[in-house]
Amino acid sequence: MRSPRPYNFSAGPACLPLSVLEQAAAEMCDWQGTGMGVMEMSHRSSAFQSIISQAESDLRQLAQVPDDFAILFMQGGALAENAIVPLNLAHTGQVDVAVTGSWSAKSADEAARYAHVHRVTDTVQDGYRSIPAPSTWTLREGVDYVHLCSNETIDGVEFAELPNLRELGCSAPLVVDCSSNQLSRPFDWSRIGLAFGGAQKNIGPAGLTLVYARKALMKSPLAACPTAFSFERVARDGSMFNTPPTYAIYIAGLVFKWALRFQYAGLQGLAALDAQNRDKAALLYGALDGSALFENRVDPSVRSRMNVPFFLRESSLTDTFLAQASQAGLMQLKGHKSKGGCRASIYNAMPLSGVQALVDFLQDFERRHG
Amino acid sequence: MRSPRPYNFSAGPACLPLSVLEQAAAEMCDWQGTGMGVMEMSHRSSAFQSIISQAESDLRQLAQVPDDFAILFMQGGALAENAIVPLNLAHTGQVDVAVTGSWSAKSADEAARYAHVHRVTDTVQDGYRSIPAPSTWTLREGVDYVHLCSNETIDGVEFAELPNLRELGCSAPLVVDCSSNQLSRPFDWSRIGLAFGGAQKNIGPAGLTLVYARKALMKSPLAACPTAFSFERVARDGSMFNTPPTYAIYIAGLVFKWALRFQYAGLQGLAALDAQNRDKAALLYGALDGSALFENRVDPSVRSRMNVPFFLRESSLTDTFLAQASQAGLMQLKGHKSKGGCRASIYNAMPLSGVQALVDFLQDFERRHG
Repeated sequence: MRSPRPYNFSAGPACLPLSVLEQAAAEMCDWQGTGMGVMEMSHRSSAFQSIISQAESDLRQLAQVPDDFAILFMQGGALAENAIVPLNLAHTGQVDVAVTGSWSAKSADEAARYAHVHRVTDTVQDGYRSIPAPSTWTLREGVDYVHLCSNETIDGVEFAELPNLRELGCSAPLVVDCSSNQLSRPFDWSRIGLAFGGAQKNIGPAGLTLVYARKALMKSPLAACPTAFSFERVARDGSMFNTPPTYAIYIAGLVFKWALRFQYAGLQGLAALDAQNRDKAALLYGALDGSALFENRVDPSVRSRMNVPFFLRESSLTDTFLAQASQAGLMQLKGHKSKGGCRASIYNAMPLSGVQALVDFLQDFERRHG
Repeated sequence: MRSPRPYNFSAGPACLPLSVLEQAAAEMCDWQGTGMGVMEMSHRSSAFQSIISQAESDLRQLAQVPDDFAILFMQGGALAENAIVPLNLAHTGQVDVAVTGSWSAKSADEAARYAHVHRVTDTVQDGYRSIPAPSTWTLREGVDYVHLCSNETIDGVEFAELPNLRELGCSAPLVVDCSSNQLSRPFDWSRIGLAFGGAQKNIGPAGLTLVYARKALMKSPLAACPTAFSFERVARDGSMFNTPPTYAIYIAGLVFKWALRFQYAGLQGLAALDAQNRDKAALLYGALDGSALFENRVDPSVRSRMNVPFFLRESSLTDTFLAQASQAGLMQLKGHKSKGGCRASIYNAMPLSGVQALVDFLQDFERRHG
């Protein structure tokens, strides 16, 4: 009998469904009788073409991505996209950014290398614990796009819903860095111009970047844009302008199949993941709010369902807590180095039982040390 | 008993050593007792830090990369590097390129988006079958760098040795796209300023790019360079400015270990691979040159030891040949779409027995159809 796996709360790369890893291991040397592993196949082979096509159509079905969006499989992660997006879209050189955490702040800084950037809101003084209502943002007329990060992995703040820019009188496309909450909940694609995210949280291995681009938005990039990072070119070549990260796409495809079959509370697919993510977050925040030792400091209306930073009021106990948690099979709970404290990332592949185990441990630790 | 694997002659992604795939499968769900697979580990974790450090030091030992070179683990492949290199190095905007095949031609075209490009030689009229002696190249004074492709994957021409630019009176650094022959033979690093290559031929999965950069050459890139692709920044952050392609680096590390242990003809490591590659190429070219049906059209002095394009003099037999070869377990022998015909890529992981099986099949096919 196999001993139970520890629960891995890494912010990314993050835990994957065990069934996905087991299938990948079983197929490592021979994918479906081809005599080759997926890593060894030409990206132009019919075998790999079937893998990438299936992955794209499963992702489209799962996340209900409309047909007027292209799905691109790219490389470089969100940090590269922070440059690639303005290189593709900032034709007039005016970009609005909502700075609601460490990642959108980085995006604003990088975009400022290619365009004039105006921060329509910036919560740095608040320690990135809240999101001002979009109706208060100082949106400008005629900008190339408005950027936001739908979930701030480091700070643990998440948009409960995406702003409707048109209702706010803004006709610019909305660009969403959804690295850490893509596939965790439904998105209202009618509000989105372009979204992007690294795969290494809810989707698969690091080294794969998903880009969801409204087809009408894609045109020739700025002159400085490397051809390999032109959305228009990558879309035209079906993500095969350069050799795509084939094995990462295969793993992502296995995760999409797992997600499509996922069941919870009588639901299936993204609806089931959404419901489980809601329940997992409620369970963990409930425990933190009911504790005299642990605390989460984010405005409850914008708390992230994916990344839960928390602190021990007696901070000298933090290292003891982390060491004992690790011994108890609750791994990678250390907070981001810029914030200190602890952080539990509870992406799609973290089951409710993992969050329950963490909550039980928090309460036990508090009894022993509180 | 396991049935033998077919031989996979793909140009890349390409075959990997079976022992590497078997170890990766065995460790997929639990790397060395951590309870986590490598794909699931934070890139900042001590476990992954040990993986990337070991991979770098093994690669440095294997390829004898001097200490005054940084080794960077990047993303985007050679096509992205075609832009990233001038974005980092073309400070005066003057670049020389030796065009000896399809890849160096692409590099010249992409570099021309960032700099004035002068082709010091161009063999397109010759069908990329030869390499004029570097002493005949029209090298210019004071350029930012001289680019060449050490092995042309599509055309099958390879530099038997890298030019010594200083002996030719040129003080510019040499930039080498070594995607398809890195680790297949020793390089004379004293002649190189910077080298780069996609991993998916001799090293591992697609989605990982190796950059070997002389430290003295790294400085602030051009203003348009995305921060994620600044050599200087990536080096300073130990390839952790953005999340690196962690699983691909792990696989590459297993391949480096395999290569360090590789033995052939009384040799070990890179010397053994070099010797086997020489013998594999001699066996295959010998069979082609001795055939009345098959032919290789490249100048014998610059024939690639990695990629062997060949043609049937009776071209109507090509499809029959490819179908029968595939049936006989000799896979992915179709030529690049721009060239037609056939191509056998015989990278490090292709054993001598695979080339012998191909030669036997060529001779058998010729007996039956010649």
